[in-house]
Amino acid sequence: MTQLGIVKRNIKRADRAAVERLAAFGVATTHEAMGRVGLMKPYMRPIYAGAQVSGTAVTVLLHPGDNWMMHVVAEQIQPGDVVIAALSADCTDGFFGDLLATSFMARGARALIIDAGVRDVKTLTEMQFPVWSKCISAKGTIKATLGSVNIPVVCAGALVNPGDAIVADDDGVVVVPADWAHKTAEAAAAREANEGDKRAKLASGVLGLDMYKMREPLEKAGLKYVD
Amino acid sequence: MTQLGIVKRNIKRADRAAVERLAAFGVATTHEAMGRVGLMKPYMRPIYAGAQVSGTAVTVLLHPGDNWMMHVVAEQIQPGDVVIAALSADCTDGFFGDLLATSFMARGARALIIDAGVRDVKTLTEMQFPVWSKCISAKGTIKATLGSVNIPVVCAGALVNPGDAIVADDDGVVVVPADWAHKTAEAAAAREANEGDKRAKLASGVLGLDMYKMREPLEKAGLKYVD
Amino acid sequence: MTQLGIVKRNIKRADRAAVERLAAFGVATTHEAMGRVGLMKPYMRPIYAGAQVSGTAVTVLLHPGDNWMMHVVAEQIQPGDVVIAALSADCTDGFFGDLLATSFMARGARALIIDAGVRDVKTLTEMQFPVWSKCISAKGTIKATLGSVNIPVVCAGALVNPGDAIVADDDGVVVVPADWAHKTAEAAAAREANEGDKRAKLASGVLGLDMYKMREPLEKAGLKYVD
Amino acid sequence: MTQLGIVKRNIKRADRAAVERLAAFGVATTHEAMGRVGLMKPYMRPIYAGAQVSGTAVTVLLHPGDNWMMHVVAEQIQPGDVVIAALSADCTDGFFGDLLATSFMARGARALIIDAGVRDVKTLTEMQFPVWSKCISAKGTIKATLGSVNIPVVCAGALVNPGDAIVADDDGVVVVPADWAHKTAEAAAAREANEGDKRAKLASGVLGLDMYKMREPLEKAGLKYVD
Amino acid sequence: MTQLGIVKRNIKRADRAAVERLAAFGVATTHEAMGRVGLMKPYMRPIYAGAQVSGTAVTVLLHPGDNWMMHVVAEQIQPGDVVIAALSADCTDGFFGDLLATSFMARGARALIIDAGVRDVKTLTEMQFPVWSKCISAKGTIKATLGSVNIPVVCAGALVNPGDAIVADDDGVVVVPADWAHKTAEAAAAREANEGDKRAKLASGVLGLDMYKMREPLEKAGLKYVD
Amino acid sequence: MTQLGIVKRNIKRADRAAVERLAAFGVATTHEAMGRVGLMKPYMRPIYAGAQVSGTAVTVLLHPGDNWMMHVVAEQIQPGDVVIAALSADCTDGFFGDLLATSFMARGARALIIDAGVRDVKTLTEMQFPVWSKCISAKGTIKATLGSVNIPVVCAGALVNPGDAIVADDDGVVVVPADWAHKTAEAAAAREANEGDKRAKLASGVLGLDMYKMREPLEKAGLKYVD
Repeated sequence: MTQLGIVKRNIKRADRAAVERLAAFGVATTHEAMGRVGLMKPYMRPIYAGAQVSGTAVTVLLHPGDNWMMHVVAEQIQPGDVVIAALSADCTDGFFGDLLATSFMARGARALIIDAGVRDVKTLTEMQFPVWSKCISAKGTIKATLGSVNIPVVCAGALVNPGDAIVADDDGVVVVPADWAHKTAEAAAAREANEGDKRAKLASGVLGLDMYKMREPLEKAGLKYVD
Repeated sequence: MTQLGIVKRNIKRADRAAVERLAAFGVATTHEAMGRVGLMKPYMRPIYAGAQVSGTAVTVLLHPGDNWMMHVVAEQIQPGDVVIAALSADCTDGFFGDLLATSFMARGARALIIDAGVRDVKTLTEMQFPVWSKCISAKGTIKATLGSVNIPVVCAGALVNPGDAIVADDDGVVVVPADWAHKTAEAAAAREANEGDKRAKLASGVLGLDMYKMREPLEKAGLKYVD
Repeated sequence: MTQLGIVKRNIKRADRAAVERLAAFGVATTHEAMGRVGLMKPYMRPIYAGAQVSGTAVTVLLHPGDNWMMHVVAEQIQPGDVVIAALSADCTDGFFGDLLATSFMARGARALIIDAGVRDVKTLTEMQFPVWSKCISAKGTIKATLGSVNIPVVCAGALVNPGDAIVADDDGVVVVPADWAHKTAEAAAAREANEGDKRAKLASGVLGLDMYKMREPLEKAGLKYVD
Repeated sequence: MTQLGIVKRNIKRADRAAVERLAAFGVATTHEAMGRVGLMKPYMRPIYAGAQVSGTAVTVLLHPGDNWMMHVVAEQIQPGDVVIAALSADCTDGFFGDLLATSFMARGARALIIDAGVRDVKTLTEMQFPVWSKCISAKGTIKATLGSVNIPVVCAGALVNPGDAIVADDDGVVVVPADWAHKTAEAAAAREANEGDKRAKLASGVLGLDMYKMREPLEKAGLKYVD
Repeated sequence: MTQLGIVKRNIKRADRAAVERLAAFGVATTHEAMGRVGLMKPYMRPIYAGAQVSGTAVTVLLHPGDNWMMHVVAEQIQPGDVVIAALSADCTDGFFGDLLATSFMARGARALIIDAGVRDVKTLTEMQFPVWSKCISAKGTIKATLGSVNIPVVCAGALVNPGDAIVADDDGVVVVPADWAHKTAEAAAAREANEGDKRAKLASGVLGLDMYKMREPLEKAGLKYVD
Repeated sequence: MTQLGIVKRNIKRADRAAVERLAAFGVATTHEAMGRVGLMKPYMRPIYAGAQVSGTAVTVLLHPGDNWMMHVVAEQIQPGDVVIAALSADCTDGFFGDLLATSFMARGARALIIDAGVRDVKTLTEMQFPVWSKCISAKGTIKATLGSVNIPVVCAGALVNPGDAIVADDDGVVVVPADWAHKTAEAAAAREANEGDKRAKLASGVLGLDMYKMREPLEKAGLKYVD
């Protein structure tokens, strides 16, 4: 549960090596490897196509229309972190632009994931600072109300604890609990191991029906072919 | 984080007396008393107006189109519980109808809170079994995939741990962490203590501007009156 | 596929007796009896609670902002019909109000199902003419463009052929193809036959887990109970 | 265009007698009488069914998450006014509850129209203070930022100038410019004059096709009847 | 109407030559040529810009969260086909990724149109396999429930019969009934014939008001010019 | 308030020089400089990324499904204008395509802002005629109903008077009242003056907490750092 006005400085980050490996697998494979949980809602979209990153979560809880805590969370960023910004209620304002991005990049942040809006997206794209957000909005914010930093938050429908591993690409954003990072990377690697082989078979015209031996279970389930 | 295929039988429920008190305060007061966190998204609506309940959460994580675990969670209900049903991905199917409601009532459940659809709402209304849901849908579900029971879940944007206190009324649904239930009830009672007095003043024509002494801070903030 | 500017006068209506029986089963049971197809999207809501009707479809295809064809379809209504109004593109205007309802009732229509808006809902409620619609809007329409009457239409995601059986209640709207009406009514009756028995068992505290013999398949699927 | 931090005290209200007449015609007729403009978006819904009101607009521009100005606008209410609350950006928070309603009623307000959320809807219903809103939410707000009172605002897609006539019922909300109130009431009266006659004809089975003489223009437009 | 668990192997495909012609006209012109029907809802978007294709429909009806039938439909693909995937209820899961795309391409499919989510969009873009979908989601699916292949389906609000011609580009997706393909191509060609001429005139500064001779009808309709 | 069937020929356009300056500042800075008002809803998106324009508004009010007035507004365009198209009710149809764009460009229009759909987006992109719209749709429209030109309109939630300055870029669209254009440009210039300096500091690792001297007010507000 959240507590307001708290900044937690020391958090336990997921194993760096495991987190690094996850970036290469991408979101879909990581999500499958975890057992199909931890995905943010599909309305979270990258501001530009092609970015694929992983990192450790530093979290911030914001209130609608107020981005004061974005400056507070900036100080807590360590190289390799991804900032996860959650909102206490739905809001489409633009909480983040090129100046904050400059600061986040200087601190070593790899990305921002925000369940609200961002702005200056043209400049952010030129800077190649990737952001996944609910929307894009030029609407600025005030600095009047305390939220919290590095508490557990719900962002776009997913629970994020500070230090969790985050993977984001064009397919969306997935959250891997810190102590699952290693085994998830292992499971993802196992999944990928025979993907090349499968792809080659399918490309040669072999059907999934045969490759996955689905014909019998489909028939048992009652599938009928008619002309 | 979630684990699939797990049913946790022993959970620590919030203090019963504190939970009972919260029903009378309702959602808006409880939410204010907590510091304005823990509210589910406003798309969660009651199937009929007027119900106002509190209870302790038993949680269930469902997959789209599959309500198998609703039968599993039924067995874990104790009198005074509220069932919180979360989904692993957005779905509008009707996961719950009059037969399950009969079973839930027999177990002592006070309400269902579900981030998806329900059906048989006419009968549920006649039975006076209150449900807060994302939508109403006659679409039935299958029983093929395991979810989990009594794990932490994210329901309509709010984190719910098994045993948390839940308050629901026409204004929505709020989650009070189990160990906050007592102090939240105290804070809510304090808020309500002078509400009658305030209401009487306002009804007599006294303005909030004067009652809350807002004129000076408004002037300081730069408010200008013009003709 | 649609053709514009056509009014088909002679349509083959579903068997009257079968259609009458479906009203009593309601939407959820009818939908299950059909094999879970034919349901309109859950955004279709009744303008007042409690109506439960069945009837044979007369269809009309409207264009955004234009209700001219509502007067054309009125003439094709026979007692026991339900009018299904589809739109060629999304629109929230109010295509139907108390005057048209007076006319539809005089022709023997049992309800209107419209994938757009209606107005005069207070009067419609007083008249007890049930309408299921996408929204409520006072926005009126013009009479300038031809649509068609009694052609196949897609209404709220469901294909409706003229003469199909329609069932609508607080859970939504379902479409039963005309030549399925009898067997669907039979299947629905079979489903309901033992519902009372099931309900009594569940009310006495028997769990669905036992009544439906789910414990073994759940265990086989890997469900684990922990303390 | 808006200016922030301004409260305009003297506004020119629409003619009282004309405004009173509009309540009886309701939203759909008023909107038609005006030439089909001025309607708020159909997402604006009453918190309870059956209220039908008219009044003169006092306007307030709020910022997301901040209801400070609601107390400022309360002082500007005169008997017969309707408060129109617009937002500078989308927000679903509950800006208004039973205490503010008590104050508004004491000042003579007839209704609140708000392009955001309200709370305490059960109590508001008991008090019979009608509210049309975008949603219902228990989420409270802070008091930190200036908006303005009695400036032109855009509320739910409609431009409202202070003093405009507002009509609201179960079909929605319509805005009548102050200097149009009289002629709109006249036009609405003219529309209603022969409605009873039309209704009687339609109830007797006369078709709109004949009553409105549509058969010829439909044929000219190319309508074909087929069997 | 749909039947579950059926795979129809022999379908009558629209005339190949006519289908090929339609690709060049694109969706807007094809849709106009048909009389403005058959368009899918505008929420259907391409995963990358610039693709413009036509093909013959093979259809598949899927259930939420279950992509088993995607493997069944793969076997029914013939070169020049476009797969149309409909859902029995709304779902945002990612039913299709790079492996299925490899298989579909090997079978000669030109595109996938799916009223749900897809994943691996970065790889799909590299493969240049075009997909039009409701959303993008990394959420995987199970293989447990039968749907059907090559039955009539409703996809994104449009009825699609197996064998229909499909045209898709950056403007959306349109369905041309198989036996309309030839005449639609003719009508589209006629529309395009004088487009170049019109464009040249408009580019030279001639107004549509004059080119289309609208001034008189506008004046008759009551248009007034004021200074 | 709107009047239908009116074309106002002489409008007072915002100062050209001021309008030109605003393009360079972009939407976010302009919006801040104005005091955070006048922004259109964030659902307004450019059909291609990278365009950044300013211009003076010529306005048109359209009805759902009818683009007749687009030809009327074309004649009122002067070089440097931006066309603002508002709708009298929500509609997703494609009101504008490559032919109209050719005409608008020939008249000197810089962009179209439309609270509905557009089509031919591939061609519009090749022509580099920028459009901000609610959606993309191939659905065409008819020419049957009068709207108005150069009246005040509400477009995507923002009031636009003819002659106002419009700024649009990847962040959205903002409306600057004509007589505010000069002072807004001045204020925007002032805001930008020290942005480079701020960016350099932040890039060097200075925190916003220190640069903006936020540590003390945060502490006063009650912020607590914990380990």
